[in-house]
Amino acid sequence: MAEHAITPRAKDFSEWYNDVIMRAQLADYSPVRGCMVIRPRGYGIWELMQQALDGMFKETGHQNAYFPLFIPQSFLAKEADHVEGFAPQLAVVTHGGGKELDEPLVVRPTSETIIYSMLSKWIQSYRDLPVLLNQWCNIVRWEMRTRLFLRTTEFLWQEGHTAHATSDEAETEARMILGIYRRFAEEWMAMPVITGVKTDSEKFAGAVRTYAIEALMQDNKALQAGTSHFLGQNFAKAFDTTFQTAAGGLDHVWSTSWGVSTRLIGGLILTHSDDNGLICPPRLAPIQVVIVPIWKTDTEREAVLQTCNGVMDSLKAGGMRVHLDWRDSMKPGAKYYEWEGNGVPVRLEIGPREVSQGQAMLARRTGGKAPVRLSEVAPATRAALDAIQQDLLSQARSRREQNSVRNVTKDQLVQLMDGAGGFAYGGFCGSGTCENEIKDQTKATVRLLPDPEFRSNPAPTKCVWCGQPATVEAVWARAY
Amino acid sequence: MAEHAITPRAKDFSEWYNDVIMRAQLADYSPVRGCMVIRPRGYGIWELMQQALDGMFKETGHQNAYFPLFIPQSFLAKEADHVEGFAPQLAVVTHGGGKELDEPLVVRPTSETIIYSMLSKWIQSYRDLPVLLNQWCNIVRWEMRTRLFLRTTEFLWQEGHTAHATSDEAETEARMILGIYRRFAEEWMAMPVITGVKTDSEKFAGAVRTYAIEALMQDNKALQAGTSHFLGQNFAKAFDTTFQTAAGGLDHVWSTSWGVSTRLIGGLILTHSDDNGLICPPRLAPIQVVIVPIWKTDTEREAVLQTCNGVMDSLKAGGMRVHLDWRDSMKPGAKYYEWEGNGVPVRLEIGPREVSQGQAMLARRTGGKAPVRLSEVAPATRAALDAIQQDLLSQARSRREQNSVRNVTKDQLVQLMDGAGGFAYGGFCGSGTCENEIKDQTKATVRLLPDPEFRSNPAPTKCVWCGQPATVEAVWARAY
Repeated sequence: MAEHAITPRAKDFSEWYNDVIMRAQLADYSPVRGCMVIRPRGYGIWELMQQALDGMFKETGHQNAYFPLFIPQSFLAKEADHVEGFAPQLAVVTHGGGKELDEPLVVRPTSETIIYSMLSKWIQSYRDLPVLLNQWCNIVRWEMRTRLFLRTTEFLWQEGHTAHATSDEAETEARMILGIYRRFAEEWMAMPVITGVKTDSEKFAGAVRTYAIEALMQDNKALQAGTSHFLGQNFAKAFDTTFQTAAGGLDHVWSTSWGVSTRLIGGLILTHSDDNGLICPPRLAPIQVVIVPIWKTDTEREAVLQTCNGVMDSLKAGGMRVHLDWRDSMKPGAKYYEWEGNGVPVRLEIGPREVSQGQAMLARRTGGKAPVRLSEVAPATRAALDAIQQDLLSQARSRREQNSVRNVTKDQLVQLMDGAGGFAYGGFCGSGTCENEIKDQTKATVRLLPDPEFRSNPAPTKCVWCGQPATVEAVWARAY
Repeated sequence: MAEHAITPRAKDFSEWYNDVIMRAQLADYSPVRGCMVIRPRGYGIWELMQQALDGMFKETGHQNAYFPLFIPQSFLAKEADHVEGFAPQLAVVTHGGGKELDEPLVVRPTSETIIYSMLSKWIQSYRDLPVLLNQWCNIVRWEMRTRLFLRTTEFLWQEGHTAHATSDEAETEARMILGIYRRFAEEWMAMPVITGVKTDSEKFAGAVRTYAIEALMQDNKALQAGTSHFLGQNFAKAFDTTFQTAAGGLDHVWSTSWGVSTRLIGGLILTHSDDNGLICPPRLAPIQVVIVPIWKTDTEREAVLQTCNGVMDSLKAGGMRVHLDWRDSMKPGAKYYEWEGNGVPVRLEIGPREVSQGQAMLARRTGGKAPVRLSEVAPATRAALDAIQQDLLSQARSRREQNSVRNVTKDQLVQLMDGAGGFAYGGFCGSGTCENEIKDQTKATVRLLPDPEFRSNPAPTKCVWCGQPATVEAVWARAY
């Protein structure tokens, strides 16, 4: 297949993003409006993300389950905010088995309602609590403007749903999951995030409080990368999910829900890639190391092949995901170009000279090339992968810090959002009026009311917009 | 939660099946017609099935991908047999985002059409072949009568889709996958199967040939447990999926598709369970060993706890999935009863007597109880698990052989299908007339034209129904 050319970021960031995806064959447009196809190289990243997250969920006591794709339309209406938030985005099944249905079914835009209808049946007593569930599935939300991975009508995600005996316990759960999301973003995706709580206008439809992780992309727009909701008793009351308390009374359960989606793959691309294509953090790279053999004569071929196979074996034994590119219809330079676009973190070049010198040339996707001894190829490659993983995180963190402005004034906020973008920290009076005016005039939204770790010191005292006393600090940005 | 009582198999097999599922909390009925909820204990079995199959698919070069849930209605019509087969079973989305759609979307009943529309874009040359894809996803087929796991409107499955340069290569792939399905059924599910090809009337809508694995359940009804289709060039022609051949010509690709679903969980239950509940083959048991401590006084409790923790650690170190049931509100007998219903293969009972004698009592779910030395608890438990796995397979195989009748006559076939059931082997002239008459009069269908390994020796010479010369041997049974 012909290689897909990549538009430079400086020329058109949005085109660049699509080009990176096409070049690496991560996904493709489908004939169905707003729905994408996730190709094997993209799905391989998702599988590694799933493994890592699933492990963290299970370590903290969660179990996977599966609830129906279809939800009776009347269920959504049981929670007033919920239906108001999701009604405009629904796909509706009106016919099944050749007949019109008595009640239309919506394709799940999220599963709180169908899950709470079941929990009402399963939970009787405090002894049945907590219920700690997670589900990996597809979700449909009818979107007007779609972008591969970032916003698609259908997407894949996990949705956790937990029910507890007390408000505190549910709150602790929602925060604990936020911590898992942060750890995953930073340790696996090498994508630094800030954490905090959403304002009421930005929270999940049906939640009491929405916590989120937010990352800053290379174009200085924010990406909401994961959310964790404290739902209070809202869904429990809508579906009458009650339990007998230890004291003998009857109470509604307290609950949480939380999710991350294939949008994370969009975040990974927008955080690390360059004008040559994808850069995949080693821990999430389906292929971590590609070995490219170089030869001209048959004699060279044999010696090189033997060495390459030996290197592959020792890297595999070292737990690395390796591919040996032995296509003989293609020149080494063309292979370098292809694997660069695919984002493979480390390339090992091995030709007759390397064989005779007992070494391989190790090239990092992030730049730099140096020989390594064949006798130490596994530990040296592992060290390179670890270093790349660390470097990507610290580079992304520096970039974010350079593009975060503290204690912005009204003028600065307007100028920043019209210009360079980034995270703007400032005081906020908490009023919906200021929030809306800022949104209208700058296209920036409050991304978070940041957690203490990310707050400014000293704390801002006045609202950036109205000048009245600040009740909280907020972070503004234009967002995906 | 109250324990669910189990109807004995002899009284009502169908009720027994539902009771086993409810008692073990594998699944539940949902408020959505024909759709089930897979609860954590059932989903845990599915996760182990997925891991095992996914590993086998990847070892043989397949990669996972994801294609859209929705398919434009017009796509299905492009392959005439395909649309005829699936049209009555479709769920149709007519509204999205609050508007009526220009073209209705069907919820995928299988993904050939959407996948071939993409392959047409991706495949240009013989160098792009073979394409070896697999997808884990949900599927919707509107069903009139549903049974938990066995037949549900929505189910989970994997669907493999491969495209090749030659007919032979595609045929080899379809057969190779059939072998993987057989190996999985026997080595993991301990469910023996026969393999072969379907008659034209039973094949997949759009296939040239459908291969299948068929198992015999405890009520002597057959279960089609997996199918692998040689599709010829049918979908390639419908979607114009062509490639430039090595010789420079242009040809349509040759393709296969193949799938197994959550129906396998139904097969597992119907093959092994008994009147006390689920029996789960150890290799697919989410919990393989449950440790039940026994104590009365606080002193006893402490000693028993210490021993139980030590046992748990050594079993885990031995790679076993272990649960220590330390609930103190429940008597040991009640715990035995609960874990028996849940199908856990091995129970270790440890009380003060066991602690003082340096042993544990090992009870097998399949019967039998004997002490094992604590110093050898890990290897002894591993040996018990392996023996249970083997025993379940050989018991199921004996049962199937006892209920397989060779060279049936017409009268025997009628009597058998009206009475005991089972697999009936006999000669078949191959005519649709005989096939239909047998179906009408006995409710039995041709399950397979068996592969050589399963054929009778000597081969039957006459058709069981019309007495004309047999062209093939067939296996009849009533089926799920």
